[in-house]
Amino acid sequence: MTSMSNLEGEMKRVKSEVDRLILDELLPRSSPIPEVELLYKMMRDYPSRPAKGLRPFLCVTACRAAGGSEEDSLLTAACIELFQHWILIHDDMEDQSELRRGQLTLHLKHSSALALNTGDALHARMWGALLLNERRLGQQKTLDVLGEFARMVGFTTEGQHMELGWVRQNRWDLTESDYIEMCTRKTSWYTVASPCRLGAIVAGSSPETLDRLRDFGMKLGVGFQIQDDALNLIGDQAKYGKAKSDDILEGKRTLILLHALGEANPSERAKATSIMSKERRLRTDDDVAYVLGLIGEYQAVEYGQRRARALMEEAIRVLRSVHWAGEKEAALLLESFSRFAVERQW
Amino acid sequence: MTSMSNLEGEMKRVKSEVDRLILDELLPRSSPIPEVELLYKMMRDYPSRPAKGLRPFLCVTACRAAGGSEEDSLLTAACIELFQHWILIHDDMEDQSELRRGQLTLHLKHSSALALNTGDALHARMWGALLLNERRLGQQKTLDVLGEFARMVGFTTEGQHMELGWVRQNRWDLTESDYIEMCTRKTSWYTVASPCRLGAIVAGSSPETLDRLRDFGMKLGVGFQIQDDALNLIGDQAKYGKAKSDDILEGKRTLILLHALGEANPSERAKATSIMSKERRLRTDDDVAYVLGLIGEYQAVEYGQRRARALMEEAIRVLRSVHWAGEKEAALLLESFSRFAVERQW
Repeated sequence: MTSMSNLEGEMKRVKSEVDRLILDELLPRSSPIPEVELLYKMMRDYPSRPAKGLRPFLCVTACRAAGGSEEDSLLTAACIELFQHWILIHDDMEDQSELRRGQLTLHLKHSSALALNTGDALHARMWGALLLNERRLGQQKTLDVLGEFARMVGFTTEGQHMELGWVRQNRWDLTESDYIEMCTRKTSWYTVASPCRLGAIVAGSSPETLDRLRDFGMKLGVGFQIQDDALNLIGDQAKYGKAKSDDILEGKRTLILLHALGEANPSERAKATSIMSKERRLRTDDDVAYVLGLIGEYQAVEYGQRRARALMEEAIRVLRSVHWAGEKEAALLLESFSRFAVERQW
Repeated sequence: MTSMSNLEGEMKRVKSEVDRLILDELLPRSSPIPEVELLYKMMRDYPSRPAKGLRPFLCVTACRAAGGSEEDSLLTAACIELFQHWILIHDDMEDQSELRRGQLTLHLKHSSALALNTGDALHARMWGALLLNERRLGQQKTLDVLGEFARMVGFTTEGQHMELGWVRQNRWDLTESDYIEMCTRKTSWYTVASPCRLGAIVAGSSPETLDRLRDFGMKLGVGFQIQDDALNLIGDQAKYGKAKSDDILEGKRTLILLHALGEANPSERAKATSIMSKERRLRTDDDVAYVLGLIGEYQAVEYGQRRARALMEEAIRVLRSVHWAGEKEAALLLESFSRFAVERQW
């Protein structure tokens, strides 16, 4: 029987394997010439901050469930984590975030110019590291893994564009299905679908299994993001590592906020959207408190969490339809993970 | 006999082939969903602006000289151009540039957040497009081409970091050899060495040939960059497409500026470095005129151009030591190109 504590132990174990690979092998400690020492230091900054490592866990566990070995999937899992690191550097700049994992964001710690370039350097390093798969996996699987990464980054940038575009165009005519469409691109691919599919590709799974893992990921990824949005509003900042209510400051159109706006009366709605339409730096503490008040009044967090749990239940049904060729225990861990993704408090 | 007009004709021809591939096949005209239409439009923006296409020309021509076919190298050549497009989007943000190829830079036309993400999307599309090489080149060459891209982007981001770091740390203790070290990373790899090497990899050249093309590229790339710096000071803005003297506004440590500072008397030097140490937006027209005056007084442009020509002569000597297995005419075009790189007026 796979328990939640088993899940957390496994996540920690995989995370430490992947971190070792990233920090000891993929990202050199010192640079070839002194003039780029700082670049190499900056590349190691986000990878050295604490993180849950959900995505590498999914990759390794899906690989084992699909009949592959953990060793075969570790490099790919590490590259998923590298993806997360470089895109967060850029994401923090796009959102003008101030804190990441409990410390100043990279562009505030150094400069926007240096941080932008560091993200690009890490992005390129990710592709370079993926080429090392050839030694162990051979050419075909190496190329298949690269293809999945290209798909994953493509969808993620589309989702990111949607979210940033809504803020920039000050769009408020959005429905729950717009949010879901955005989330499947921004979150589902890189957080759930691709990590699982990459593990399965390494294990040599059939296209049918890959399709089911895509469907599983689409649903669970949205559930995961809704809970992430909820934690941003109500979570413990020390555990969560981002500034509380950052999403409101950043003008994010979350499902929770959209629900509150939908339930609010016209004057509440007008006041809230006018607050949310301000430039970030002009939103006051009172403004944030007003929006949080509306969210509380209409129980929008609870609504979001109900939607997240329903998506998780659907995701688990899809997951159970997969014909796994490997470790039963690993398949059960994926189910435990699904619950964790929408019930976690950090 | 290969003449300069033949060279320009060939560059135009290759550029139009590569543009067709990029705009008709690699970058879709419309997006899968309306919400990301603008992203796709932004991805096509820089690729739709006029450009010389030097790098794809080098790739295709080196491939022909090395005994490969133009058709085999076109996709790789197009991906080099995609690299140039995404890195320029980010570069323009890092340098706070206002004009690119005669139009507003992408981040000023839209927003920094959307432009940053567009660069990432184009970066990922570049890697995805490189995977299409497999159909025509097979797995080994496809992977070798990817490896060269990883190397190329890695060096370019190192060079970019050096240049940005000097501005940020307000470093003026720099020598000509610091400039050359920075330039080989920032410019030589992606402008000359990798385009030539990629053409040769597609053609199946020996490691020895690849080494010589690296050496050729290191020298010619620096010569190319010095002339680029010179054109930024004295070039015709309409032809050149960037704002004149932009490098001075951006605080760039060019070989030309370093030479003028080295020749200047202590009080001139103190005044010039204090001007160059200001924030970009605080540098006045008079400030720029003063620095340009020093550069003129000490004939620093002429000095730079002499250095560039000497590097070009060394590069051509290396180029002549390559044992080409293919078209003699193509090898001669590479020589014409070398002269063009440091003598061009645009």
